[in-house]
This record gives sequence, structure tokens and C-alpha cells, in this order.
Amino acid sequence: MQTKFSIKEEKEEYSICIHYLYKSTKNVNGKVLLLHEVFLYKHQPLFHALPITLFLSHFRSSSFFQPWPMTTCSANLAPLLGVNGTGAADYICSKFSDASYAVDNTYLLFSAYLVFSMQLGFAMLCAGSVRAKNTMNIMLTNVLDAATGGLFYYLFGFAFAFGSPSNGFIGRHNFALESIPSSSFDYSNFLYQWAFAIAAAGITSGSIAERTQFVAYLIYSSFLTGFVYPVVSHWFWATDGWASAFRTDDFLFGSGVIDFAGSGVVHIVGGVAGLWGAFIEGPRIGRFDHSGRSVALRGHSATLVVLGTFMLWFGWYGFNPGSFNKISSFYTSGNYYGQWSAVGRTAVTTTLAGCTAALTTLFCKRMLTGHWNVTDVCNGLLGGFAAITSGCSVVEPWAAIICGFVAALVLIGCNKLAEKVKYDDPLEAAQLHGGCGAWGVIFTGLFASEKLVKQVYPGRPAKYGLFMGGGGKLFAAQIIQILVIVGWVSATMGTLFYFLHKFGLLRISVEDEMAGMDLTRHGGLAYVYHDEDESQKNGIQMRKIESFPTPPSV
Amino acid sequence: MQTKFSIKEEKEEYSICIHYLYKSTKNVNGKVLLLHEVFLYKHQPLFHALPITLFLSHFRSSSFFQPWPMTTCSANLAPLLGVNGTGAADYICSKFSDASYAVDNTYLLFSAYLVFSMQLGFAMLCAGSVRAKNTMNIMLTNVLDAATGGLFYYLFGFAFAFGSPSNGFIGRHNFALESIPSSSFDYSNFLYQWAFAIAAAGITSGSIAERTQFVAYLIYSSFLTGFVYPVVSHWFWATDGWASAFRTDDFLFGSGVIDFAGSGVVHIVGGVAGLWGAFIEGPRIGRFDHSGRSVALRGHSATLVVLGTFMLWFGWYGFNPGSFNKISSFYTSGNYYGQWSAVGRTAVTTTLAGCTAALTTLFCKRMLTGHWNVTDVCNGLLGGFAAITSGCSVVEPWAAIICGFVAALVLIGCNKLAEKVKYDDPLEAAQLHGGCGAWGVIFTGLFASEKLVKQVYPGRPAKYGLFMGGGGKLFAAQIIQILVIVGWVSATMGTLFYFLHKFGLLRISVEDEMAGMDLTRHGGLAYVYHDEDESQKNGIQMRKIESFPTPPSV
Amino acid sequence: MQTKFSIKEEKEEYSICIHYLYKSTKNVNGKVLLLHEVFLYKHQPLFHALPITLFLSHFRSSSFFQPWPMTTCSANLAPLLGVNGTGAADYICSKFSDASYAVDNTYLLFSAYLVFSMQLGFAMLCAGSVRAKNTMNIMLTNVLDAATGGLFYYLFGFAFAFGSPSNGFIGRHNFALESIPSSSFDYSNFLYQWAFAIAAAGITSGSIAERTQFVAYLIYSSFLTGFVYPVVSHWFWATDGWASAFRTDDFLFGSGVIDFAGSGVVHIVGGVAGLWGAFIEGPRIGRFDHSGRSVALRGHSATLVVLGTFMLWFGWYGFNPGSFNKISSFYTSGNYYGQWSAVGRTAVTTTLAGCTAALTTLFCKRMLTGHWNVTDVCNGLLGGFAAITSGCSVVEPWAAIICGFVAALVLIGCNKLAEKVKYDDPLEAAQLHGGCGAWGVIFTGLFASEKLVKQVYPGRPAKYGLFMGGGGKLFAAQIIQILVIVGWVSATMGTLFYFLHKFGLLRISVEDEMAGMDLTRHGGLAYVYHDEDESQKNGIQMRKIESFPTPPSV
Repeated sequence: MQTKFSIKEEKEEYSICIHYLYKSTKNVNGKVLLLHEVFLYKHQPLFHALPITLFLSHFRSSSFFQPWPMTTCSANLAPLLGVNGTGAADYICSKFSDASYAVDNTYLLFSAYLVFSMQLGFAMLCAGSVRAKNTMNIMLTNVLDAATGGLFYYLFGFAFAFGSPSNGFIGRHNFALESIPSSSFDYSNFLYQWAFAIAAAGITSGSIAERTQFVAYLIYSSFLTGFVYPVVSHWFWATDGWASAFRTDDFLFGSGVIDFAGSGVVHIVGGVAGLWGAFIEGPRIGRFDHSGRSVALRGHSATLVVLGTFMLWFGWYGFNPGSFNKISSFYTSGNYYGQWSAVGRTAVTTTLAGCTAALTTLFCKRMLTGHWNVTDVCNGLLGGFAAITSGCSVVEPWAAIICGFVAALVLIGCNKLAEKVKYDDPLEAAQLHGGCGAWGVIFTGLFASEKLVKQVYPGRPAKYGLFMGGGGKLFAAQIIQILVIVGWVSATMGTLFYFLHKFGLLRISVEDEMAGMDLTRHGGLAYVYHDEDESQKNGIQMRKIESFPTPPSV
Repeated sequence: MQTKFSIKEEKEEYSICIHYLYKSTKNVNGKVLLLHEVFLYKHQPLFHALPITLFLSHFRSSSFFQPWPMTTCSANLAPLLGVNGTGAADYICSKFSDASYAVDNTYLLFSAYLVFSMQLGFAMLCAGSVRAKNTMNIMLTNVLDAATGGLFYYLFGFAFAFGSPSNGFIGRHNFALESIPSSSFDYSNFLYQWAFAIAAAGITSGSIAERTQFVAYLIYSSFLTGFVYPVVSHWFWATDGWASAFRTDDFLFGSGVIDFAGSGVVHIVGGVAGLWGAFIEGPRIGRFDHSGRSVALRGHSATLVVLGTFMLWFGWYGFNPGSFNKISSFYTSGNYYGQWSAVGRTAVTTTLAGCTAALTTLFCKRMLTGHWNVTDVCNGLLGGFAAITSGCSVVEPWAAIICGFVAALVLIGCNKLAEKVKYDDPLEAAQLHGGCGAWGVIFTGLFASEKLVKQVYPGRPAKYGLFMGGGGKLFAAQIIQILVIVGWVSATMGTLFYFLHKFGLLRISVEDEMAGMDLTRHGGLAYVYHDEDESQKNGIQMRKIESFPTPPSV
Repeated sequence: MQTKFSIKEEKEEYSICIHYLYKSTKNVNGKVLLLHEVFLYKHQPLFHALPITLFLSHFRSSSFFQPWPMTTCSANLAPLLGVNGTGAADYICSKFSDASYAVDNTYLLFSAYLVFSMQLGFAMLCAGSVRAKNTMNIMLTNVLDAATGGLFYYLFGFAFAFGSPSNGFIGRHNFALESIPSSSFDYSNFLYQWAFAIAAAGITSGSIAERTQFVAYLIYSSFLTGFVYPVVSHWFWATDGWASAFRTDDFLFGSGVIDFAGSGVVHIVGGVAGLWGAFIEGPRIGRFDHSGRSVALRGHSATLVVLGTFMLWFGWYGFNPGSFNKISSFYTSGNYYGQWSAVGRTAVTTTLAGCTAALTTLFCKRMLTGHWNVTDVCNGLLGGFAAITSGCSVVEPWAAIICGFVAALVLIGCNKLAEKVKYDDPLEAAQLHGGCGAWGVIFTGLFASEKLVKQVYPGRPAKYGLFMGGGGKLFAAQIIQILVIVGWVSATMGTLFYFLHKFGLLRISVEDEMAGMDLTRHGGLAYVYHDEDESQKNGIQMRKIESFPTPPSV
């Protein structure tokens, strides 16, 4: 009798359901939100597992926060319990629903905390990658990304991104979380999405480090987390976004964009924004010498780079597997294989992509430069993560290895190119998040597996990877995603940076840049290893020093 | 049929239940522990959801660790299942109970781990905020807070705090966890509370940094975590504490103190203890110059300050939302709105208060000092967290923004005051945890929402915030809490510090202070960037150096 | 009717079950995997709780990933539901199964993330414990432990360890996770075990720090994580390992080895491998002076040591309590006491052992050296953790205090011995992980409690601690474990290091060692506090510097 609950995967049954889904979408004015309500009351014996599965398709959009559709559960259980089973079935099913809410919220909240911990990772990575004299500046931007992001994303960012019902371009409800919690969203969803929003801003601040006015930072950061990023996430992740994987019309090649955890939505957005900022304000003084040769301006602490990288790795386990939002959904009830397995697999693909990218970078860089470089390995690792983020849930582990391998090459290539065109990005952020992120979006179009796409996005026509025999439609959609994001971010952030530049608000003065921003703008240097009061006691008058005394010129 | 399980909120039904609750309390000699046993067997159709809800009110006291009252579940389910339903209902309900224990313990344990990670945050924040020559000293105190705390809180601290049945002043059972696990407490409760206890000690060590004898630290730290703090937490958090929110008599204006995660119990305790210590031993040498002007003795590493702040932020998600102890409790079974939502909301209020405080500090400090200061922003952020800790679960997100805004002003004010009275606190701990903590307690008395108080503390008469129309009773109780804590900590810790001072055990010698404690007491400096054996090889005899060579005087 | 579900612990019933278990093992060609399938269909009223309990015994081997045996649940529930109860029972039980998978995977995945965070801890601890000139090198090994480990453990390490059905020596299925997920393993199991494997490699890299060629590192690290460690974990943790606690034959004194989270499997393996490496290549230059006296080559940053230690502490909560793999298993359904309690207790024993060891080290070192040393306290703390790791789940909290106390003395003793025999281990890794790990294995043989062993390993003959009245059989088995691990690791890793040494691949040149490996092999030093481009601007030509300018010789 176990078979009663198995998913029917025969073609004709599927097509019936999808048809039905389509119809009910039309009936409710494009609001996907109400779909399952209508749908799930239909519980003919043959389909009673399928609706549940289809229901699960909406996990990514965060648009449903009803983990186990209670009505379906009761409808299924009541007849099994006999003549007067309705009351008992309702009672039992309501408790299953409670259990599911509890597990899923625990899962999502702790994932959100992990994603938040990436801010610590960014802060340390950035601090270690800049020169000591600009440490305070870069760390302050990281703290403020989180703080400003918290306020703005609460007030309107979340509404722009997920405030349905809305149009395809931008959300328009739930400002200041006014109707949270609802059956669609709980506070945990907001917290999770906020942690994503601030990550995008963190990427950009790396690109323009060491030479950008603090006021410029305050302006672009608010604009990015409050408007530019939420709009992009609306397009691809909200149920009513125009390129959302949950639309069922034929708009985007009958496919939709699969950007599971945001190689495009987060990483390309942050990277392209940084690209424009860094491009417009030009390289740091001394980054290219008189003859145009590249001069490495090394960061001041590899220890902080490694610390930050490990924290980002740690946090990425919230970023990628956490993007399922729910863990208690089953594929076939009572079976060991369910969403919990998919979550675990996503953690594994993430790990493998990063590991492979790190090793590839290690050996490539050794061949290119002759030494084993830990900061390059760290960047390679992060490039692998940025790339796998798009397809992490819909590719097999072996494919993740390919993803990571290519990501490392992409990063090395982008860095070569950046040097050639005299583009200076202290954190390699545009190359890493933009370049590897774009590769990741393409990779998904090539390697997404039919079986896994059907599982993770069950309500869609299931276009899958070109190399997996799925044809070019998903691939084409993915290319569209890249173009559209690059276009949108260029139009908004590029324009913003251009005007900031024009009005003299973007770049700091030569004097400030030489002296370092910590001393001139942030009240002092980050490190005071020397004991000032002691030296005064000893009668030695010392001038303000960086972190150690400059040797007297002889 | 959904309505069968909804909570009845009509006044008359509530009053009946509360009356009943009161009676059964009397019957069992003041032991609230047995209340629900009596109560939950009563399962008339009308009330069958209410007992469950009332039961949940006890979450904070940690006094019940029975997440889903199995007997109620069975009693409700059995008649629904028909004539012979008892066996099946018992079986099913016992499994729901298991699921709930599993989820709640997972939730609580990981929350405890997060709170523990705050010790790492404290250690780094403290290290970065002191001068390099005292780094070893301050970090050792942070490690020992956790270690000593572990042993003492196991042996008697937990017993003093939660060892019921007891009197209103101090607990007296469960020494060395002798009857753990029980239906009231599991090991996870102990672990969680231990992580709180060591946080209080960590606060104090910041105030008296850089000038306190290590022996004095060992003494006060043991006394604080082993006795002073447990007693305070008993008063406000144990079911039989005299000011506990779970008492149903009219003692404290018919209200009780709402200090959900401990703005008072943890932060004021730690802050006031630090205040007395720092006050009694006086400022560090050089902190105020001959003319009495304040001289900043800057910490040696802003990077560590930011690292510590982010870790504390991360850990605060265990501290505040974790204080629910359980996540699987429902308000109306089968509904999306349950304790999981309240937990998420608490994470959101916490985030918003911190973010607002950080931004407020940024702009205020910019106006006051002319630069954008990252360490001040970090302190402001933490001040916001310390303030929201009291009311995080019972205020709306918009109120959290007010809380954070005022907290930043309170911190700036306290710091001004401290400078004026020549009070020296290297971590601003008394100002931050004491001052903002006190504001937080008051804030709860002003902004606690009726709806949320009823949800989070459902068995009480539900006094709520003055500004929310709830009258002044809760506010008065909150004021009492501040006074009582300040009194108790002053009487105990103040006296202790006084006698330590009197017997010459508190402050280190001038020579030690000038040289730094690491060199004189802890076997060497924290940083050895210079390679000693190498310089010896090169024939250069170098004297013991701090972290880099002093330039030769010319 | 509650009693219906209680575990029957009478001797005769137990023996019947065990007998039955044994028979079914034989019937399926030694494949323990299939055991419960056969077993659990047997559901006579008297035994219906027992099979479940026995089933739970397999948690550690990770060989079963079916948290609640659905068939048992249905078989029990169906008759209770009445004549036509089978369908309803199946439906209900399948949902319980889903809930259980969701909770257990959440628990295991987040535990895996915590264990992974230990790599960050190792990296910082190692970095802080070496001289500044070798920081890049040691951190690169830590990053690569994780990266290489990820790839190799995926390709074959996990297969060697847990690829059953297999022989007692080595697993031989599931290469590249080919049949994952199955009823035995899910992706989360792989992730968790991977995080363990890389921890072992991290230990070894500490022992041979500051003087080992990078190529040697690449070779031994791959060999250790890909082969040596997986084989050991197969022996003790896989269901068909020859010394596995899940074998029911009389091979090892009718007992089995209890090494719950790996004091032996992880810590002794890593420690002994490091011992041979460090022994064969000899001490660092300058570690012992001409007269043979020990000269401390202090690590360059105590701050990093403390940071790393706290991260390891944090991660250890994944390591030890996480080793249960599941948290939703009950002992008696519907009771507050279940696996969740055991998980919490394990967190408590872990905490207490570490705390006691830290305090013991503090006072002992104070007596021996005259100062309060924070890095020694950190090492003592970690020694306590390494020791309790073996028995954490089967000893009472009070015993954990003894464990930690002795561990501190063992570490001090081992360090004294190492100095005497001129053994140089920059991280004290062989002493700490090898020495304290061995003590931990012995400790379990002495203090394992009968009650807890029966709970945690219910299907076995339950040999327990010598001092607890359990006789010497478990103790003997534990001794065998130490001998066997030392033998195996010596034979494999010792030989490898010997040949690396013989072919000149192990130790770096004297010049490289004097200059530091960062400069000669890793492209530069970890710290660049001085601003190179600025000094060039000023016309000062500076030679490559470590992290600050050397004062000009006068």
C-alpha cells in the first residue's frame, strides 16, 4: 500500500496537472499565490500525491509558506480513517502542519544566520585585501551594508522584491512588513532575503575600495540594496516576476531562468555595479606604473583574507542549500528521498565546486607565477562558489566539479584581461562575482539535469541543460538573464556612478589617497601597536603613525 | 472544521481559565511546575485549545520542557477517532511529542551554540579595544569566563537560578544537574543558560580592563557567574522567582517584569558590576591628562573590534530569538502563525534595533567629531542590541527602530557623562550594557504591545506598554527591575570590589601598568612579528620588543 | 496505556532480540544493512518497542538513514486504528517519517557546518602558533586540507570508509557517491564525514609546520585523507568494520570499541601521523640551542590562537553531539527523555571536560612557570576536548570533569617528555591530539556508564567501564584500538614520511627555513603593514621586509 503515495511520473498525468495549473492561474488574475488553494482541493486518488509535489515547486519564490498543505492532508487521510474521519484527520494534519512549520522555520532562520555571517567574512576579506591605511574605511562600509540594508530592506526593499500581487517589474506590497506573517511569507523569509541583499552591496564595495568618497558609498549602497537589487530579485525570484521560473506562459522560450541561489541575481549584480564604479573612477595611484605595467598593491594581511574566506565558505552553506527555504517537503511521503536529500546534495555540489576551483587555481597559479599563493587560492575558491550558486540544486555532483574547474580558469582569464585594460579592482570583485557568476548562469544552462529540474521546479515545462540533452531553450533563457542584468545594472548603477563622478563626489583627493582614508576621514588608523601614552611618558614626541614607526631616513 | 482548533480570545473564557490556573497553583503549594498537569486534563470542547496556549506561557522560565502536552493531544484526538480511539490517539500523540522534542532541542542547542560564539566575539572585541600590551590578559579573562563559568554554573549556578521548587529569592535543587533531564529541564536548557551566564562576566571584564590584577579577576568572576547573576536570573526568569512574569499573584502591580532575553538580567548586571569595579580602581594612567582632559587610549586593532562586533551580532540571533527555548509551539494548530513566527519576528526586531542604532551613531558622531568612526558605529550597534534584548519578543518591528535610535543617543550621552566624571571604561561596557540595557527595560514598559504580550506571556494579566495604552503598571514593574538589579549588584559586587581594593588585590602596580600586563604577568606579548632567532643569527642583539622595533632615538 | 510503549529492559527479552538480530545477520551474508528490514516486520506486542530501540543502535555507523522505521510504526498503529486501519496508519506513519527525516537532516547538516568551521579554527590556531614568516604556508595547508579533502573524499574516501557491504578492512562501494542517497546514507552523511576527514589532516599539518616542503604536504595530505583515515574510520565506525561496535560476534572480547566521535579515529590518527613527520624531519632550526636546551619559538599572534581556539570550541559542538547523526530518535515514545537528551548531555560533557582542562592547565602552568599563560590554557582546553571526544556520549557529566582534569596533566606530561627527547611540534599536535586522544580512549574504558552504553549502543552486549563495575573487557578493547591505530598509522604514514625524507622531498633547505617559507615559496609575506608604493614615492628604496622595517644598524 506504500505505492499509494508514490509520485506518478508518467507523461500524460503530468500534462493534465500542468494544464490545470495553467487554467487556475488565469482565473485568479495572474496571482500564483492562490493557485494551490484551488488546486489542492482536487484530490482524486490518482493525483493525490502529485498536487503536493507541484505545490513544492514554489519553494524558491518564497511565495508560499505553508509547508504541508493541510487541506490535502486531511482530504487524503479522512476517507482512510473511515466514516467519521474528518475531525480526526483535521486534528492530526494540523499537527503535522505545525511540525513542518517548526522544522522549516528552524532551518530557514539558521540558514539566514549563516548567510549573515558572510558579512563578517566579507569584512575580513576586504580588510585583509586592502592596504593597512584604508582598513577602517573598508570595514565601515561592510558594517554599514548590513545596517543600512537592514533599515532600507525593511522599509521598501522587501516590498519591491516580493510584494505580490504585483506586475512583472517590481513588487508593491508589504512595505515595512505590514502584512507579515501571512500564508506566503513569514519573518524568517524577510530575514533570509535581507542577508542576501546586503551581500550584493558587499561585493560592490570591494571593487571601488581604497579610493572612493564615503558619501558616494552611502549613496550608491542605499540605492543598490534599496532599489536596484530588489528589482532584479523580483524579476527572477518572485512568483510574478517577468522572468520568474514560476510563470507558466511562454514568454522566455517556454522556459524560465534557473538562478537558484543567485549567481546572477546576487553576484552579477554586485560585480557589474562594482565594475562601473571602479571603471569610472579609474585605478588606484601606483597600481600601474609610468610604463603601464601592473604593480601589485598587496593587501595588508593574508591572515584576514583566509579568515574571511573560511567565513564565507561557512556562510555559503546558508546561501545555497538554504535557498530551498524549506526542508520538510517530501517527494514521496515516507521515502528517504525528499527535499532534505536535495538540500544535502546542494551542500555537496557547493563544496565540490569550491574545492575544485581552489585546486585548479593552486596549480595554474603555480605554473604561471612559480609559487603557491594562498590568497589566489582563496579567490579561486570563492569564484567556484559564485559559479555554482546558480545551478547548485539542479546539477549532479560530478557536474559541480566541471563548474569549479572552469570557474577557476574564468577568474584567471578575467584577471589577465583586467590587467590588460588597466582595470583596478582591489578585491577582484567584478572578475570574481561578475565573471564567475556569469559562467555559473551559463553552466546551469548546459548541465542542469532533467530529473533534478523536475524535482526542484516541478510545475514548469522542465527545460533543462543543453549538454544533458535538454535543448537550447534553458540555455537561451540563461543568456537572456546575463544580458538583462548587465543592462539593468549598467543603466542604473553605471549612471549613478557617472553622475557622482561628474559632480566630484566619487573619488577622493590625491592627498587623501596617499595618506590613506583612515587617517583623513575615519579618525585614525586601524592599528595602534605602539603605545602612545608610554612614548609621551618617555619624553619622545612621536608624530601620528600608521601602525609602526617609519625608519628615519638616513 | 478548522475553527474547532482556533484560540478563543473572548474575555469571559480567558477569565475562567486564569481563575482556574490560580486555584491549582494554590493547591500544589506554590509549585507552578505541577499546574499544567492539573489543568490540561480538563478538556471540555470549548477550552481544548486554550489550555495548550496557556501552557505555552511557561516557555521563558524554562520550567517546562514538555513541548506538546501529550495528554491533551490524546484527550482531544481519542474521541475524534471513535469508540476505541484511545490506543491510537496515544500512539499518534506520543509521536507528535517526540517530533516536537526533537525540533525544540535542535533549535535550543544550536541557539546555545550561537550564544556561546558570543564569547569569541567578546574576546576579539575586548582584545581589539585594549592596547597591544594587555591583549593576552584580556583574552585570558574571556577564555576563563567560559571555563570557570562552565564548572561553577554546572556545580551550583544553574541550581541557584532554576532549581525549583524553591523560594522567591534563590533556587535550591539540581546542583550538578542531579535530576536533569526531567519534564522541566533538559541538558540543552542548562547549556543555553550557561552561555548566558558567561556573557554577563564578559561584560564586566571589559570595564576593568588594562589595570586589574588577575587574582581579582578570578575572584569576582567566580562570584558573579556562580552567585550574583544566577540569583538575578532566578528572580525574573524562574517560575518561582519573586518578580517572575509567571507569578500570578498581585505582588508587582499585578504585572511582572518583562525582560525577555535579559537587558536587565544580563546586561545591567554585567554593566553595573563593571561600573563599580572601574569606579573603585580609577582610570588608567594617562586616560585623563594633568589638566583633566580626556585622552583617548585607543585600542590596538579596529579589525578585531569589527570582527568581534560581527560575531556578537551573529551570536545575538541565539541570544534573543533563542530565548523562546521552543519553536514548535503553535498558537492555533495548523495555522501559519505560531511560535515560529514569533521567533522570526524577534530576530527582525533585534536586527532593526541594532541597525538603527549603528546608523544613528554614525551620523551623530560625524556631527560631533567630524569623521566617520567604525569603532563607534560598532559600539552603537551593540548598544542597540543590548537595549532591544528586553522587549524583542513583545514589540513590533517599527518600535524596534525607536528603541535603537534612542539607544544610540543614550550611549553617546553616557559616554559624555563618563568623560565628565572621569570614569574610565576601556570597552564602554558600563555605558553600553548598563546604560542601553536600562533604556531597553524602560522601552519595554513603554512599547510592549498588548497582542504580543498576550501571545508570549499568555497566562498573565497582560499588562502592556504605557505608550500602547496599557497603563503604567508594566512600566512601574520595569522601573522596579532596574532599581532592584542596581541595588543587588551594587551590594554584592560593589562590596566585593571595595574589599579587594582595600586589601590591595584589585589594581596592578604603576610599573606593571606602564609595561603592560602581558609582559609582567602572562609570559610575553601577544604579537611577535619579529623573528627573534633570526636576529640572533645575524648577530643583532635585540631587547624584548612589543610587536615591532622602536626607532632609535636620534 | 503509556506503558505499552515503554522499553522492556528485562534480561530475557533482550537476549531473545539479540539472538534474532544475530540470526538475520547471518542470513544476509553479513550485510548488517538489511537487518532491520527483516527484524522490524516482527511486531509481536511484547517487542514492538524493542526493535525500534535496537534499530537506533546503528546511529553512529551512519549506516541507516531511516530515522523512524515506517513499517514498525504502521504495524503498531494499524491494529489500534481498528479494522480498516492499515491505509490510515501507513499515511500517518509516512508523514512521521518525513518529519523525522527533515529534523534529522537539519540537525546533521548544521552539525556538519559546525564541524567545517573547525577548519577556520585550525587555520587561525596554526597561523597564530607559527612565526610570521611561515603564516602563508600554514594557512595554505589548512585551506587545501579542506579542498583536497573535498575532492578525494568524494571520489573514494567515503567509499573506503562506509561503502558497505564490504569486508572488515575497507569499504568498496559508493565511489563518487554513486548510490547516494539510499536508505543507508544521505548527502548529509557524506558532508559530515568529509568535515571529519579534513580535521585529521589539519592536525598533522600542525606538527610539521615551518619546515616541510609544500610538495610533501600535498602528497601526505592526499594519502591521509584519501586512504589512511578512511580505513581507520571503516574499522571502528562502519557497520561491517572489524572492530565496529555494531558487530555482534565475539571478536573483540565480546565487546567492541567505543570511540563515539573519534578520540582515536580522528585525533590519534592525526597526532601519530604528525609525530612521525615531525620526528623524521627533526626540530626547527633554533628550537634547541647548542647546549640542547629548549628555546621557545613563539607563535606570532596570541590573538589568532585565541580566535582559533574559540572557533574550535564552537565547532566541537558539531563534532561531538553531532556524531549521533540523528536527534529525533526516541527511547520511549512520548517521553521527555530521548536521543535529544543524549545529544544535549554530550554537549554538556564536552563543555565540562574542556573547561576543567583549561582551569587545570591555568593553575598547573602558573605553578610551573610563574605566569598565567593564555596560549597554554587554550591548548589545555583543546586537550580536554580531544580526550572527551571518545566517550562523550556514554559518560556522566561528573566523569567528564575527571576526563578533563587528567587530560591537562597528560598534555603537560607529554610536552615535558617532548622537550626531553628534543621532539619539536610547533602546535603540540602530537602531544595534544595523540596524547590526550589516547587518554580519552582509555578513559572511556574506565568510566563508560552501563545505562548510557545500553542506550547509545543498545544492540550490543553492553560492556562498560572498568571503574563503573563493568569489568575489563571494554577497557581491553579500547587498549587494542590505541595499539592498532598507532600501528597502522606508523606503518603507512611513518613509511611515507620516511621515503619522502629519503628522497629529499620532506624538509626545506636551511636557507628557506631561515628566510621563511612565505617569502621563498608563497610569493611574499602574510603581512604588509607598510605601504610600499608610498615609500617608493618618497624616494626611499626599501628591501623586501617582513611586516615592518628592521631598524637600521647603527
